[in-house]
Formats: sequence, structure tokens, C-alpha cells
Amino acid sequence: MTDYLMNAWYQAGFTEEVPAGGKLGRIICEIPLVFFRRPGGQLTALVDRCAHRFAPLSAGRVDGGAIFCGYHGLGFGAEGTCVHNPHGPIVSALRLRSFPVVERHAIIWVWLGDPDRAEPALIPDLSYIDETPPQARIAGYMPTAANYQLLSDNILDLSHADYLHPDTLGGINTTAKSTNRREGDTIVVDWLAENCEPPPAFRVTLNGAQRADIWTEVVWQAPAVLTLGVAAVPAGQPRTAQDESYTLHNMVPETATTTHYFYCSTRRFRVDDEGFSQFLRGAFAQAFTQEDKPMLEKQQARIGTADFWSLEPVLLKIDAASTRARRLLGQRIADEKTESR
Amino acid sequence: MTDYLMNAWYQAGFTEEVPAGGKLGRIICEIPLVFFRRPGGQLTALVDRCAHRFAPLSAGRVDGGAIFCGYHGLGFGAEGTCVHNPHGPIVSALRLRSFPVVERHAIIWVWLGDPDRAEPALIPDLSYIDETPPQARIAGYMPTAANYQLLSDNILDLSHADYLHPDTLGGINTTAKSTNRREGDTIVVDWLAENCEPPPAFRVTLNGAQRADIWTEVVWQAPAVLTLGVAAVPAGQPRTAQDESYTLHNMVPETATTTHYFYCSTRRFRVDDEGFSQFLRGAFAQAFTQEDKPMLEKQQARIGTADFWSLEPVLLKIDAASTRARRLLGQRIADEKTESR
Amino acid sequence: MTDYLMNAWYQAGFTEEVPAGGKLGRIICEIPLVFFRRPGGQLTALVDRCAHRFAPLSAGRVDGGAIFCGYHGLGFGAEGTCVHNPHGPIVSALRLRSFPVVERHAIIWVWLGDPDRAEPALIPDLSYIDETPPQARIAGYMPTAANYQLLSDNILDLSHADYLHPDTLGGINTTAKSTNRREGDTIVVDWLAENCEPPPAFRVTLNGAQRADIWTEVVWQAPAVLTLGVAAVPAGQPRTAQDESYTLHNMVPETATTTHYFYCSTRRFRVDDEGFSQFLRGAFAQAFTQEDKPMLEKQQARIGTADFWSLEPVLLKIDAASTRARRLLGQRIADEKTESR
Repeated sequence: MTDYLMNAWYQAGFTEEVPAGGKLGRIICEIPLVFFRRPGGQLTALVDRCAHRFAPLSAGRVDGGAIFCGYHGLGFGAEGTCVHNPHGPIVSALRLRSFPVVERHAIIWVWLGDPDRAEPALIPDLSYIDETPPQARIAGYMPTAANYQLLSDNILDLSHADYLHPDTLGGINTTAKSTNRREGDTIVVDWLAENCEPPPAFRVTLNGAQRADIWTEVVWQAPAVLTLGVAAVPAGQPRTAQDESYTLHNMVPETATTTHYFYCSTRRFRVDDEGFSQFLRGAFAQAFTQEDKPMLEKQQARIGTADFWSLEPVLLKIDAASTRARRLLGQRIADEKTESR
Repeated sequence: MTDYLMNAWYQAGFTEEVPAGGKLGRIICEIPLVFFRRPGGQLTALVDRCAHRFAPLSAGRVDGGAIFCGYHGLGFGAEGTCVHNPHGPIVSALRLRSFPVVERHAIIWVWLGDPDRAEPALIPDLSYIDETPPQARIAGYMPTAANYQLLSDNILDLSHADYLHPDTLGGINTTAKSTNRREGDTIVVDWLAENCEPPPAFRVTLNGAQRADIWTEVVWQAPAVLTLGVAAVPAGQPRTAQDESYTLHNMVPETATTTHYFYCSTRRFRVDDEGFSQFLRGAFAQAFTQEDKPMLEKQQARIGTADFWSLEPVLLKIDAASTRARRLLGQRIADEKTESR
Repeated sequence: MTDYLMNAWYQAGFTEEVPAGGKLGRIICEIPLVFFRRPGGQLTALVDRCAHRFAPLSAGRVDGGAIFCGYHGLGFGAEGTCVHNPHGPIVSALRLRSFPVVERHAIIWVWLGDPDRAEPALIPDLSYIDETPPQARIAGYMPTAANYQLLSDNILDLSHADYLHPDTLGGINTTAKSTNRREGDTIVVDWLAENCEPPPAFRVTLNGAQRADIWTEVVWQAPAVLTLGVAAVPAGQPRTAQDESYTLHNMVPETATTTHYFYCSTRRFRVDDEGFSQFLRGAFAQAFTQEDKPMLEKQQARIGTADFWSLEPVLLKIDAASTRARRLLGQRIADEKTESR
């Protein structure tokens, strides 16, 4: 089994994926999990494998805040305690591992490691999502057959847009001024393209301006939670908060070679412009599904099961931020293993 | 390779699967086998891999009681002797392993172990099949991607019907009186639901009775041959032999994680009622294909390649019979390994 | 990883598969390769995995004799040198392994071993292709999920046609006079069917003759390049060069269990007869795709990952040539390993 960062909040999905009475099964870091709600709405996260015969509880049904196995009817409630055994007493072994789970920023967060360290304050601050009216959010989920770190590399080096997304997002980042730095537990990388020819997907917001100033910033946090902020204004005009859009790119490992890619775009302009939302959905579909996903999966296929560093990738300037992030994450995983001995 | 019970009769299929001049290829316990008939109708079972270049003989043709390889024309007859070599003398190495094979109860039985111990008397007594006119038999085959012991567990604990088949067969077994015992080499488990509300699939036979007495009995024999007997009568009425139906559930390992699930339902009532047969076929299709198979395959997916006991399943009262069966089978497999040293 | 013969020319495809400005990605002996042309038309063969992040270059674009990675824009030219790095200096590590590549006989040949030994004179002489006008060539590609040596065995023992292709090519080779011999680095096997009833696919060329003399000859060269020559004339008539057809069967290992099967039929008669070409295409489609490929893949499935010889195939007279070829190839691979120590 691959080593994952265990003491971390992972996105299991969006809150709307678990309606009242509903359930969601998802494998994270190779651990099968099931999510469902108590009558009051509070989420429960349990291992998605019945203690009795190992059937997935996510194939069962939810009732009154408990989940009932679809095979033999055992019910498990919050904290994984058995609340119903139609076949005898509730013995102490009838208990499922439960996981700390929190809803914040319209996202379900689950903690896989030591429950005593599951501090909600450690959830990345994505308050830009809450500050955005729902009609100006575009959330999506794209399962991808590649390691999650290849996916975070992809966002930490946006120069790739110039080559992989030339018809939508690309054209400015290779030549933009870029810096990167560590800030606390985050890695920050930014690009400034001054007086540039705006990429096609930016033109809509620029009211016909032929030249633009475009600021881009990516903030990475372990394990692979990235926020991509962009502001584009006609060249020389002042930038305001209203010009900004922030998009979450959250790369959640399912296995060593498969990733749950969650994204959520937010914006502060054209908030009620459904036509613009539609345009963005189309641009994302092209860029993410038609361009990123195939490339990332081909990249994974070439890497196979080899360790990434063992293949001796040539490090370029554009890899500075992703290399920092990989090393920071690697150190945290190594520290966890040392601690747990 | 997984350990299987070798000195045992395994169902290779139903007799009608091998018509005169026909052939059947099937992998049992990871051994590829081919079945065909002599002119007199007697079956031959050979390893399904030509001695010459390892092509499957089941891709060839049958003629005059021999099977001819479709690649280079070598012919092999009963006992696996080469009967035709178009390319030279029939050397002694041109011989295929043959397997004892018997037809009984409309079923093809093959013996994978020591041929000297292949006693037809060891074939499970399924004479209820012979005693049933063909129009009152419903035979089926459902390949399932799960270990065969998960499939026999499923029948040895019919309480699962209450949760997995609520619209057809379920509703009575969790609360029924149940006992189980070893009888010789069999494990027997029975359920008696007195004055119960009959499950939907039983109502047809009860002539509108609102309450019923229902007897259910499962007899297991190694490796995983199960007969499920049921009798349902209006509550308080006497039970007669005419009320009984017996269904074979024969779980034949193909590999460690795939099973040939053969079933054959027989009944002593409504024997000529084709409408009722049609109703049963529909009920089986729903219960087996739509409900059992997906659950068993999900269960297998959660177990993966782990040893079942290593996962420490919590044993409930309902698992008593399946645990007995697993232990009895495990002991027999272990004994075989000891003997063969 | 399986051992392959490294110091050998392998067919990567047909020249027409790489037009000007085009590219071809193909895995040979488990090595991913990409092929493209310089402006003058000369081919380049590079490892198909960018030095930077391991994306396949074959997912990129070709411009001015270089191939540009579709992910981050790095360009690599002939000899694998980096010709364009949009992100900084061209450091020495930015280099891809290149492979000697030659076009000859309308085929792209690549050398995977020691470049100093990549002598074009070692390319098999297939001048019959060049001597045949394009309209009388029928080239094809059939990826097959079987080891390449099973595919060369298939051609080295044409008796299989009598059983696998009875409706097109078979009927004469089991009883034909056959000899085989080593000639230098080749294995030659021939068949002479005198005064035979011609197989169906031969009748078209025999102008209604009921009996024929048919010469067949296969020349094998390592690793698995085979030329199959045939001449059929009405029985007793003299054979001339105009009666001959030669077909390349080139079995190129992709992995241990998958093969690129390239073929190219040529003929000296009915050169401009498009109807006859169409007839041949249909015959090949039936014989190769419908008959050979399924049998070879089933054969591979039965062999699995076992070593061929470990299964102790019974050797018949018809296996003499293929056994010679397997041993000769095995010896050359073993010699290479010894040398490289």
C-alpha cells in the first residue's frame, strides 16, 4: 500500500451529494468509506464494510440516522456503533470504525488519521466558496486514472495551459512573471502577465479589450488542496476585488493511481449571468475532461508503478512550486510514519 | 493457487449443455476442462489444452467420439488417448489427462482428484430432480465474480432474503425458528415460520391464504452443493409431500474469485402450470441476478484477495451453519493436503 | 521484464504510417517509441516519454523536424536533443534516448540495442516488396494478444492451414513433402504439394485447373521476420517467376503477451487486377482476423505466464522448423545477455 498523509482532512464530496436519507460511498486513500446523515442533518462517516460479512454498507439503506446493511439488516449509527442486530444481541465487536467528518464550504471533509488530532481548524480556508452565491459556483467531479500528485503538479505549473489548453486558457503563463514561495504550510505560486493578449476564455470578461493584465495565483496545501485565483483587467486598468475568481482544485487520492478530482469555480463578476456560467461549464469540460484528463492518464501510464523520483525527471524552473509541494508532502508523510512507530 | 477440494464431484454443467456431437469448455478449480460424447452418448472429460501446442480443444470439433484440435488436427478420444495424429506416429506423450465424469440427475459431474477414489456413490443424491418432470424444473446458470464459499454462505443463511429479497422471498426467516446440525458429511439448517405473513413469491401457491406455515431446509455437502427445500401451507393445515419444492444451488469454483452458480428448481405442485414456471423464472431472475449477484460481487470486492477469516468477521447466530460448512470443508481440504504428502 | 533480442531491427510500422508532419507512437519490446520526420523526410525514433514529466511525446505535435510535448511544450529533434525549452536553458539532461531508424522496403525499422551495431545491412532483404507495384501489395496490421513466438510458430508450421483455414488456404500442407534447414542465420522450411486438389483461395489463379502443383517456402529470420513464398501452377506445368507471390509476416513483440503482427502480400501475377486484390483482402481478413487471431489468443490464454518449454509441448515433425527458430532466437538472446555483462 502506498503511504498517504493520514492526519489530514480529505474532501469526500460536495455536501449536496448526501441529501437527507441519502448515502455516499467513496474510497479515499484505499479506505472504503460511507457517508450518511442523522435526522438533524449531521454527517456520519464509517468504514464502508460491514463488520459481519464485509458487504459495503453503501449498498444498503439509511433510516433514522443509521445505515442498514442490505445483506443481513444490521444497522450502524453515528460513531459506528451497532444500533440494530435482527439476529441477536449487539456484541461489542459489532462496531465499525468511524471517522471525524465536517461540512464546511459546501464540502464534506473526512479525517483518516488519529481522531484526537482532527481539528476542524485544520480544514483549508475556502471561504471564497461561501461568499459566492450558488448560481456563481460551478462544482464538478472528474475521476482520473492518475496519481493525485500528478494532478496537483498540473495546477502548480500553469504554464501547461499554453500547450494543453491553447484554445481556452493558454497563451500567457510561459512568459508571465512568476514567483513561488512557502508561506507557513502552504506553497504559493503566482504569475503576472502584463499587457498580454488575453487567452480566449478570458476575452468574454474583458469587454473587447485587446490587451490585458492578468494575475494568477495558486495556493497549495497538503495533501493536495489547491486554490487558483485569477483576475483579468483591460491593460493598465486598476484591479479590484470584483475582478477576481477563485477555483478550488482538490485532488483526493482514491488509490495510488486513481484520483477524485473535485473542482469548484467561484467568481465575483457576472454573478447572475447564467449564460456566462454555461460558457464556463463548456470551457471546463473542454480543458479538464478533453485535455487534462487524457494527458494525466497517459502520463500515469508511462510512469506505471515506478516511483516518480526514481525516473529522474528533469527539473525546470516551472517545476519549482510542484517540487516544493511534493517535498513538503513527502516530509509530512515521513514524519507521520516516524511518529507512529 | 488457491487450495480446492480435489477428491470431490463438481458439477460441470447440465447434461443438455453437451448434445451429441457438441462440446463444452469450462474451467473448474482453475483447471480447463472440455466435455464431449462418444457415439453411444457416454461423456468424456479431458483437460482442455492440447498436448502439442496448448490450444484449447474446446475450440476444435467433435467427430466419432473424439475431439479434434482446431489448430493442427490432433484427435483425442475417451481416456485422453490420441486417436489421430495427421503429422506422424502417435507417441506416448500425446495423451491428455482425462477425468472421471458421470451424468446423474441431469447434471454432468467431474472428479478432479485421484481417479481411483472417484466413486459415483459419492455424487450427492439429488433424486428430486429425476422425480420432477422436465416442465416443472427450472435450471439456470449464473456466473458470479465472487468466491464460491461466499455463495454457499448465502444459501446457508437464508435470513438474508429478508433484507436482500424483500419483494419476493423475504420476510420470514429472521424470526423463524431455526436449527442446524451436522448429519454425516452434510450440514443441515432449517427454519420454521409458523402462522406467518407469506412472502410475495409464496402467495401464488397459497390460494389467497393470509397466514401460512412455511418450512425451509438447506442441506449442504462439500464442496458447495446445496439443496434448499421449502413447503408452504395455509396456516394450520397439514403439510404433505405435494407441497414441497426442492432447489439445487451448486456453487462450483472457477477460480478463487469466480464461481459457476448452477441452480435447478423442482416442485411437486402446479407441475404443468407453465404460467407458474414463468412466474418463478421471473422471481429467480430478480432475486438471483438483480439482487444476490451484485451483493456477492460487492462483498468479494471488499474482501479482495484477503483470507476471509483474517478479516475477523463477527459471527452471529445466523452464521452457525455457514461456519460449520466452512470449517468442515477447510478440514477436508487440509486432510487432502496431508494425505498427498 | 521478458528478455528480447535487442540488437535487431524491428518493424515499427509501414512508412505510410508516418506522413510528413505526422507521428506514430508504438511500444516495441516494452519500450515506448515515437516516430516522426525531419523536413527532408528522414525519420527520427525517440523514446516516447518526455524527459521532463514523462508525458508521451506522441500526444504532442510535430513541427519543423522536431516533436513538441503536448504538456509543457518542450521540443526534441533528431538524435533526441532538446531543440526548444520555453521555460529556460536547454540543460544537458534534457535529452531523449534516440534509436537508429531506417526505412526500407516500405517499412520503418528501428534498432533497440547497441547503436554502434545498427548496421542497415542487417535489415532482412524484403526486396520483393520494392519489386511489386503498390497496387499489387496488400499490407495489414493485426495487433494480437499472444506472444510473438506463438505467431512465428504459426507461420513456420503451415500444416495448421489444413485445420484452421479449411475454406481458404488449407488442405495440402499436412500431406505435402516438407523439408527444413538452417541457412546462415535463417531457418527455411518448404512444402511441395504435387498434383493436389488446390485449396479454395488458390483456385482463382489456376484458371479452373482441377489439380495443381503448389510450392510453399517460409524463410524465418530473428527475431520473427518471416517471408512466405507460394507458387501454384496447373499440375505438370512448369513454374515460372510470374507464378510467385511473397508475403511478409513480421511478428513484433509489444510485450511478452502482445504482438504487432504486420503483413504485406506481394504478387507477380494479376498485378493490376483490383478485383483479385479485393478477393485477397477478404481471404486475409477471414484467415488472419477470424481464424488465426482468436486461436493464437486462446493458445496464449492457456499458456498464461508460464514459460513455453516448461509446459513440455509434445514435439511433432511439423514443429521442426519452429523449434529450430525458437532455439536459434533463444541462443542469440542468451548470447546478448552474456556479452552485455
